[in-house]
Amino acid sequence: MSNEEVKVHDLGFVKLLDVMGNDEEVENAARISYGEGTRKTSATRNLIRYLMRHKHTSPFEMCEIKFHLKLPIFVMRQLVRHRTANLNEYSGRYSVMSDDFYFPKGKNLKPQSSTNKQGREEGELGNDTGELEFEIFRIFDGAKNAYHNLLDWNLSRELARIVLPVSNYTEVIWKTDLHNFFHFVKLRGDNHAQQEIQDFAHVMYHLVKPHFPLCCEAFEDYIRDAVTFSKKEMEIIKDNINTIVATDRLSKREETEFLEKLK
Amino acid sequence: MSNEEVKVHDLGFVKLLDVMGNDEEVENAARISYGEGTRKTSATRNLIRYLMRHKHTSPFEMCEIKFHLKLPIFVMRQLVRHRTANLNEYSGRYSVMSDDFYFPKGKNLKPQSSTNKQGREEGELGNDTGELEFEIFRIFDGAKNAYHNLLDWNLSRELARIVLPVSNYTEVIWKTDLHNFFHFVKLRGDNHAQQEIQDFAHVMYHLVKPHFPLCCEAFEDYIRDAVTFSKKEMEIIKDNINTIVATDRLSKREETEFLEKLK
Amino acid sequence: MSNEEVKVHDLGFVKLLDVMGNDEEVENAARISYGEGTRKTSATRNLIRYLMRHKHTSPFEMCEIKFHLKLPIFVMRQLVRHRTANLNEYSGRYSVMSDDFYFPKGKNLKPQSSTNKQGREEGELGNDTGELEFEIFRIFDGAKNAYHNLLDWNLSRELARIVLPVSNYTEVIWKTDLHNFFHFVKLRGDNHAQQEIQDFAHVMYHLVKPHFPLCCEAFEDYIRDAVTFSKKEMEIIKDNINTIVATDRLSKREETEFLEKLK
Amino acid sequence: MSNEEVKVHDLGFVKLLDVMGNDEEVENAARISYGEGTRKTSATRNLIRYLMRHKHTSPFEMCEIKFHLKLPIFVMRQLVRHRTANLNEYSGRYSVMSDDFYFPKGKNLKPQSSTNKQGREEGELGNDTGELEFEIFRIFDGAKNAYHNLLDWNLSRELARIVLPVSNYTEVIWKTDLHNFFHFVKLRGDNHAQQEIQDFAHVMYHLVKPHFPLCCEAFEDYIRDAVTFSKKEMEIIKDNINTIVATDRLSKREETEFLEKLK
Repeated sequence: MSNEEVKVHDLGFVKLLDVMGNDEEVENAARISYGEGTRKTSATRNLIRYLMRHKHTSPFEMCEIKFHLKLPIFVMRQLVRHRTANLNEYSGRYSVMSDDFYFPKGKNLKPQSSTNKQGREEGELGNDTGELEFEIFRIFDGAKNAYHNLLDWNLSRELARIVLPVSNYTEVIWKTDLHNFFHFVKLRGDNHAQQEIQDFAHVMYHLVKPHFPLCCEAFEDYIRDAVTFSKKEMEIIKDNINTIVATDRLSKREETEFLEKLK
Repeated sequence: MSNEEVKVHDLGFVKLLDVMGNDEEVENAARISYGEGTRKTSATRNLIRYLMRHKHTSPFEMCEIKFHLKLPIFVMRQLVRHRTANLNEYSGRYSVMSDDFYFPKGKNLKPQSSTNKQGREEGELGNDTGELEFEIFRIFDGAKNAYHNLLDWNLSRELARIVLPVSNYTEVIWKTDLHNFFHFVKLRGDNHAQQEIQDFAHVMYHLVKPHFPLCCEAFEDYIRDAVTFSKKEMEIIKDNINTIVATDRLSKREETEFLEKLK
Repeated sequence: MSNEEVKVHDLGFVKLLDVMGNDEEVENAARISYGEGTRKTSATRNLIRYLMRHKHTSPFEMCEIKFHLKLPIFVMRQLVRHRTANLNEYSGRYSVMSDDFYFPKGKNLKPQSSTNKQGREEGELGNDTGELEFEIFRIFDGAKNAYHNLLDWNLSRELARIVLPVSNYTEVIWKTDLHNFFHFVKLRGDNHAQQEIQDFAHVMYHLVKPHFPLCCEAFEDYIRDAVTFSKKEMEIIKDNINTIVATDRLSKREETEFLEKLK
Repeated sequence: MSNEEVKVHDLGFVKLLDVMGNDEEVENAARISYGEGTRKTSATRNLIRYLMRHKHTSPFEMCEIKFHLKLPIFVMRQLVRHRTANLNEYSGRYSVMSDDFYFPKGKNLKPQSSTNKQGREEGELGNDTGELEFEIFRIFDGAKNAYHNLLDWNLSRELARIVLPVSNYTEVIWKTDLHNFFHFVKLRGDNHAQQEIQDFAHVMYHLVKPHFPLCCEAFEDYIRDAVTFSKKEMEIIKDNINTIVATDRLSKREETEFLEKLK
């Protein structure tokens, strides 16, 4: 464990604190279900890919990943929705909150998307971003000062903090199992998630991948980059697809499964 | 279901949206475990008290309670930690946030506790609270204006909102089972919890109680108002307690259990 | 709630005990996230289909379904793996177990699949099934008698029951939210699941469907009957699909999403 | 990790496969919530005891424990009820079940308790236990033979196994966090739990304790060996307790808390 802090944005970070398990442990957990029967079957990689493809998720739950994160409160509010994780967050009741705020500037101040009600899009804001930055700075600076003034007047910490904006940074120890981590990465690394949590998800995934290279490869192929078609979409595909002759890009077993899906 | 909004603080509310089950349903669920054997046993109240006393929690999980809440973000951040609940929160990515803020005033601006690092205490702040209120108002008013300015300049909603303080109101549909609701009330209705979430917990409990009078009575007697002593504290109690003669305040069965605990 | 027992196999049953919510409640829960902004958008059906398609699962968690099931222990052992459910099972420690056993006969005694290590297949057993039935009967009858003899000799119920086979029937109250119920149906109604739990899943789904017609329709189109292709499979599909001209079988919005997936 | 198999009963075992974290990691997780403010406070032991006493459970969730267990199906059915655990069980659909059965003999064949409907008690069975053992043996031997006959006749494994009794041994990889492990030990190590799962719980706890000596000590003092009194019981205690003068058996802080509870 290198334990190095990887920066996210100007003031946030991700640190991988601890990992339990590895690719072989996933295999070992799976072998328990299969008993002696499987010994012959196949190498670790094939087994892991089979498990991922068929959503046999429990062997992946046998590994755990623990992070230390520094992130804005509004990102924390999205992270906490993943209920299978364990977490311990910095307490603004007990301690004084940091003076750091997530402050996007310049071209990072993106306009409201015209097609997606819950997102931003590329492009220019009508205004000079300087004006927006000033507006944002005014609030961050004011809130920071107000917070400290309130503390100086001995207002209880749990009340003083209510003036702090959701861009204020917090810290958390966050732990989850590998299966649920993949689920988190699928949802929050997706380009429909808010950009800021995507940035965290990508760094977290990048740190985890060397510890589980085969699991991550399988995750990418069968989950992250997989595409799902509805019943009606499948009808259209079947009506429009040519006879598939050579699918030498798939293993024999996967080819059978593939052709089955197109029948 | 009266569906009436009960006010909490100036701008928040609790509405009980739906309830599944009642005292009898808890009994019915328990009877399944016991089979024919119990029919004779006892009335609903006795059975429910037995279940609560012995932490047979699953029958209480068979009931559900659903609320609509309007609450400050900092209270929402405490509520969301109860992971067995289901929730749907207002989205600041999709919609414009409200202009309402939780704003404690006058004697509600309590000083930092001198004995409890994570709480407030009764007593006067050194300063006139008017000064504190002005400081708080300045931030709330500034943040509200900045937020709307940023929206007017077409900054994406998911970014504009980051200037809003954690006192800003959000809304949520929150649903949990009766067992986990009791756990929530035990923790968040306790006087070590932050006052603001206590206020919500008390109103929520008050609305639920008429739907489960026997379960709530048992919860109060055996959980909420129960006291736990450590191994060492028990030694001291045993050394200092008089022979207990008449405990006609307990049922025969409970008396046996009680004396057993003191042996 | 008709509360009628629907038979599964000879001796099991499913009874739908209670339902919380309906299609409109799913919509209402979703509207909370969207705030005023959506009012105009669309009818219930469109919204529900949108939520299902994009895996916005929390609104479906706002509904609950409660069953009373009588099922063999080996099926119960599969059911209990769905950890988000609440359950209360008949207790063989407290009460005397039933004399009922799941007893497949004749053509239901299917041979081991030659292609799927964990399943059966169509076809004839080498032997007359009468011989197998006799073997099975001998065990069930013997276990039943032994169990009652052990009870007659006053062996504790929790020990006497250990001679009973996993085909012995148990009963359970089982409750879950609609999202997790769909997940259960997807996994256990699938033809890779053991036939016996499929039979239960299908009856349970059949009873739930009239209570949530729009949610169930969306579940079938976007989840149950949807097909997922891996990254490599998608490459093959893209190489082999004709230009799709008329997709008047999809809504405008879905057509855009569909073509996007094939790009 | 010694990785040694510890025998439970004649044929079962517990093997501690892996541990994530230790006492110091629990402290580190807690420090995150408290920020700089606590550094001075206190040594690891005091902090851990404080956390346990006040049910601050999340730091204990930051550690994980993974076991390999061989246990009878009826014990597995109790273990699986702990829903926060992850597990991977041997599959009787995929592989041939073992020929091992849990077989209590002689004085372990205990009579039904006359006071506790769900338990056994000390004492003699009316009958010679030899007769009971023969009855049990007859079923185990018959079931084993029938199972293998059915397999020989090529009945699918998932069907053949239904003749096997719940005393048949299965295997499982079972993983949980330290907080939920303590909860498991509290419930299943308790003398109201079935003796057989108590035996497993005790061995598991014994293997875990050297990895978390301070956490385990705190668990024993404040949870395992603690006693809870209901509201009414507390009234009786308060009426019957002498003025407590010297409680030098408690720390200053705990003494204050103790006297508070008796007020």
